[in-house]
Amino acid sequence: METDVEGIEQEVSTGSLPGWDRVEDLVGAAHARYRDVDDGVVADYIPVLATVDPGLYGVCVAESGGAVHGAGDTEVEFSVQSISKAFVYALVCEEFGHQDVLERVGVNNTGLPFNSVIAVELNDGHPMNPMVNAGALATTALMPGASFGEQWENVRGGLSAFAGRQLELDDEVYRSESATNMRNKAIARLLQSYGRIEVDPLEVVDVYTRQCALRVSAHDLAVMGATLADGGVNPVTGERVVSGQVCRDTLAVLAATGMYERSGEWLFEIGLPAKSGVAGGIVAVAPGKGAIGTFSPPLDPAGNSVRGQRATAYLSRTLGLNVF
Amino acid sequence: METDVEGIEQEVSTGSLPGWDRVEDLVGAAHARYRDVDDGVVADYIPVLATVDPGLYGVCVAESGGAVHGAGDTEVEFSVQSISKAFVYALVCEEFGHQDVLERVGVNNTGLPFNSVIAVELNDGHPMNPMVNAGALATTALMPGASFGEQWENVRGGLSAFAGRQLELDDEVYRSESATNMRNKAIARLLQSYGRIEVDPLEVVDVYTRQCALRVSAHDLAVMGATLADGGVNPVTGERVVSGQVCRDTLAVLAATGMYERSGEWLFEIGLPAKSGVAGGIVAVAPGKGAIGTFSPPLDPAGNSVRGQRATAYLSRTLGLNVF
Amino acid sequence: METDVEGIEQEVSTGSLPGWDRVEDLVGAAHARYRDVDDGVVADYIPVLATVDPGLYGVCVAESGGAVHGAGDTEVEFSVQSISKAFVYALVCEEFGHQDVLERVGVNNTGLPFNSVIAVELNDGHPMNPMVNAGALATTALMPGASFGEQWENVRGGLSAFAGRQLELDDEVYRSESATNMRNKAIARLLQSYGRIEVDPLEVVDVYTRQCALRVSAHDLAVMGATLADGGVNPVTGERVVSGQVCRDTLAVLAATGMYERSGEWLFEIGLPAKSGVAGGIVAVAPGKGAIGTFSPPLDPAGNSVRGQRATAYLSRTLGLNVF
Amino acid sequence: METDVEGIEQEVSTGSLPGWDRVEDLVGAAHARYRDVDDGVVADYIPVLATVDPGLYGVCVAESGGAVHGAGDTEVEFSVQSISKAFVYALVCEEFGHQDVLERVGVNNTGLPFNSVIAVELNDGHPMNPMVNAGALATTALMPGASFGEQWENVRGGLSAFAGRQLELDDEVYRSESATNMRNKAIARLLQSYGRIEVDPLEVVDVYTRQCALRVSAHDLAVMGATLADGGVNPVTGERVVSGQVCRDTLAVLAATGMYERSGEWLFEIGLPAKSGVAGGIVAVAPGKGAIGTFSPPLDPAGNSVRGQRATAYLSRTLGLNVF
Repeated sequence: METDVEGIEQEVSTGSLPGWDRVEDLVGAAHARYRDVDDGVVADYIPVLATVDPGLYGVCVAESGGAVHGAGDTEVEFSVQSISKAFVYALVCEEFGHQDVLERVGVNNTGLPFNSVIAVELNDGHPMNPMVNAGALATTALMPGASFGEQWENVRGGLSAFAGRQLELDDEVYRSESATNMRNKAIARLLQSYGRIEVDPLEVVDVYTRQCALRVSAHDLAVMGATLADGGVNPVTGERVVSGQVCRDTLAVLAATGMYERSGEWLFEIGLPAKSGVAGGIVAVAPGKGAIGTFSPPLDPAGNSVRGQRATAYLSRTLGLNVF
Repeated sequence: METDVEGIEQEVSTGSLPGWDRVEDLVGAAHARYRDVDDGVVADYIPVLATVDPGLYGVCVAESGGAVHGAGDTEVEFSVQSISKAFVYALVCEEFGHQDVLERVGVNNTGLPFNSVIAVELNDGHPMNPMVNAGALATTALMPGASFGEQWENVRGGLSAFAGRQLELDDEVYRSESATNMRNKAIARLLQSYGRIEVDPLEVVDVYTRQCALRVSAHDLAVMGATLADGGVNPVTGERVVSGQVCRDTLAVLAATGMYERSGEWLFEIGLPAKSGVAGGIVAVAPGKGAIGTFSPPLDPAGNSVRGQRATAYLSRTLGLNVF
Repeated sequence: METDVEGIEQEVSTGSLPGWDRVEDLVGAAHARYRDVDDGVVADYIPVLATVDPGLYGVCVAESGGAVHGAGDTEVEFSVQSISKAFVYALVCEEFGHQDVLERVGVNNTGLPFNSVIAVELNDGHPMNPMVNAGALATTALMPGASFGEQWENVRGGLSAFAGRQLELDDEVYRSESATNMRNKAIARLLQSYGRIEVDPLEVVDVYTRQCALRVSAHDLAVMGATLADGGVNPVTGERVVSGQVCRDTLAVLAATGMYERSGEWLFEIGLPAKSGVAGGIVAVAPGKGAIGTFSPPLDPAGNSVRGQRATAYLSRTLGLNVF
Repeated sequence: METDVEGIEQEVSTGSLPGWDRVEDLVGAAHARYRDVDDGVVADYIPVLATVDPGLYGVCVAESGGAVHGAGDTEVEFSVQSISKAFVYALVCEEFGHQDVLERVGVNNTGLPFNSVIAVELNDGHPMNPMVNAGALATTALMPGASFGEQWENVRGGLSAFAGRQLELDDEVYRSESATNMRNKAIARLLQSYGRIEVDPLEVVDVYTRQCALRVSAHDLAVMGATLADGGVNPVTGERVVSGQVCRDTLAVLAATGMYERSGEWLFEIGLPAKSGVAGGIVAVAPGKGAIGTFSPPLDPAGNSVRGQRATAYLSRTLGLNVF
């Protein structure tokens, strides 16, 4: 890249959401419209996920002004899974800065699945971007903390600040995933073999597995996303979590890579930076305006919540959120 | 994707640009700031490109309201090259519609260079997206027209409508590239071997080579981009060129793939859908607001104009255009 | 490679075949044993191949001493197809020498299918080996001749010398394949784009398409193979076709790459350098001893004749031909 | 593959080596000819290897009749490294049989480097062949033994039987490599994630690291290779180590994959199944006749001993060993 923007402040220019009642109505409509959809299959790669009630369904919009609108099961908790990648990335950007994280973790789409090792080998061990597992592990490895325990507490504390409440570990999910995360251990070792992770790779995988097992609700996801939409200030608590620059960086990376090799489709259809998790959560962020958090466990073959995608697409359209 | 948005209108929500004087000042500042940068190398893969004056430098902003601001060599013409991909894609989307073009051409980033054949083979001949050469050829092959001659006239007519004036072929560039476009012929044949191009692949390459040799100025690029920003209506001529849906589709694809395997970096640094050409042009679009067109022949190693990128990044920041 | 063998003559050390009667008996047994096998499917990628009688079946062994043993349809002609690659390679090695052809065409297995373009791109256009289509085209492009017509006559003349009789073009196969060889045209253009073919790539494809359409019988294949087994002297006509060094080079390349990405399996199961064609021919060479030529049109999913493979494996075992 | 050879005995057909004096002279000549070559660099990826005397140089030929000819440092010990892969593979073939090992480990060349993970991912976790590290680990995982300790003792016992004397672990090499084998740990975890290794992958890596650290001499390598040449009977001790079928299988795999992505070159230049190790050893096998063992630490850029390759090529030629 050939930019030269040091010292030039990024100005902000935004539109605004429709009024309170209109948003309230549309969130209700998004929930009602897809309530009876029963497509998709609940994730079963770990037994504990497969036991969830597939009928659970919550839709929530948090405005950057602090208003929160919900319909359905917006307070039911589930594990955040890959959605955590976006917020841990923001925390690491806050610590290390734009350029350093760009060089260490990257921002470009690999064109390959989330757990691929091909791109790692083709790029001399570079993890390529923070949303694929290689990059997410490399990002978690950069979390501040004098020990792995501290790193984990900082992950939890950081994501809790995004959510505006103390998030808890789902111990059953954590233990279950710890027993089946061989692929992540392989990826972490591979990064280590290229000198891209300098600490104990198994400890990094452990922190990462914990971060994926944090419990959130659709409400939490909406508030976490709205914090990114609001330039880094949690619109409910008023706490600054990260800088405005970090928010833009994080949203740009989500737009480019948040849905892995199908990120282009997501922009083409919905037009918002977003991230989904295999437990059924999705967060989509409308910069300056707010965020949509949804929860519904049944997934499409690509691993994204069926009702969640539909509700997000509906709200992106009706609320005028598509950034293009 | 699991969206369900048929019949739901996309609402539009925009902010606005600063006032006339401020934009005028910032365009002048963007030009002045980088005028003396002499990094980069003029493209020489065809002799005619290498003879251009490397000192040429123009910066232009066209507002979606129709105002145009320029500084420097904004009326000097050069060949549009790969920037044509974006506008031919819009014309084909207008003809075939969102879903059909999605299936035939794709929208996802390959993680590979613009002229790679690896992704084509790995995806059973699918061209993957309209910005890599495979997808650009597949897109041009879809242009309406009863003959290749008609297709070419429709390409020229369509891009002229985007520019608001009749664009002309640079015959010297066309002939020079026709003698050196073996790679595109290989790619077109490969697509044919997979049944992805059903017409004569060499004729498709010929139309594509012509489209790349159309002459535009920085002023033209800004107006062309502003037509995409303005929901498909040329803000200078008032002519509707494509629909609002087509504009969103095109901008989403540019965001995801416009800079090939480095598209993520562009969003991370500049935050706008954009496209560049090896003759030194760049267009970047701020949805709802307008577009930046720049021209400066010296390129960085990735093939993007050095001063053009810098000016675009400057204006993205100072005009508050970053979509994130 | 770190060898240093200039001026050191390669000594030859061979065992010998069993006596005339024993070979005669085993060839008959190989034919009889698999006569009633009706597995496999006749190639149909061009219509003319699909019309062949699937019951045709010939087995032939030619000894390096000149004796020829046959059973079944050993004189029925069919198109040589990919088997031609081995003998054209030998002719080109004879002309350019060991080192030059090694550098230009290569000898290493790609691990990829015969018509892949991935290896070409990953290796900066190097065709990798003469058995995959990229390397076969690069090899044919090196055939001596002042014109493409002369090159083609030299291919035909050379293969005829290997066979010991004048081979003829199957005009129907040639025309049919000429209409469907888009993939080879793509590969040839790709090689041209990397500067690996300097002549007209379409003419190279034409010569290659002709070479694949030469008509041979199982008898011819056995004699052609026996010429390689006999250090380059046709054991029937007594004519020297290529040098002993060229024979070793050709057989080494067949062992490493003759069956494309499944070459290792062939050595593991049969232990002989070999080449097959989609019209149903197979030739396998026992260095110093002779060669097996078989013909039976029905192919397994990998494109190799079912009865041909079985008969070859049987004879490799019973005649003690496995080189390991 | 479409073979049908059950119950058909593989006949053996061999030539013979020149007489005792001639072999003795040629071994001496091979040693003398390259004694003063000082090209190549000693491996330094673990510190202990870098401390070896680069001047050490031994050449040894063991005949299948039991005669052993040596020149230079034929009794100096060094770690066997990757050469162990060939013999552990033979032991596993002896236990599981031709078909089972074919299916589990594979025999085809990947076209990729020894430690690549790309082929593993592209082939759904299949290790592809026993010479690349993925396949070597999968092979070691199959070694008989009720515990990892027993597996290791069986590896050591088996390789000792090939050598005809008790081989010892180089503890310093083992500890040094144990501290740096992250890549192998990554590969083993990756295989586990695909269900291709069912036991503890770290224990498999440990046994594999031990097997690579076994101490052998050039003399040992020649006898080990001659055991494969002699149909599985150690020609010095008279002990049957593996069956004749296992020897053919092992030699076929060495021919196809022993030198990784450059195996074709080795056949093209030397014409013998062979394996090299980064400590400077090479073994090359002439089926039915005997084997060449060499030792010289300085390596070429591909990781093969410079003097070892040259001596092997010389002896292959002068002793008439090239199988083609």
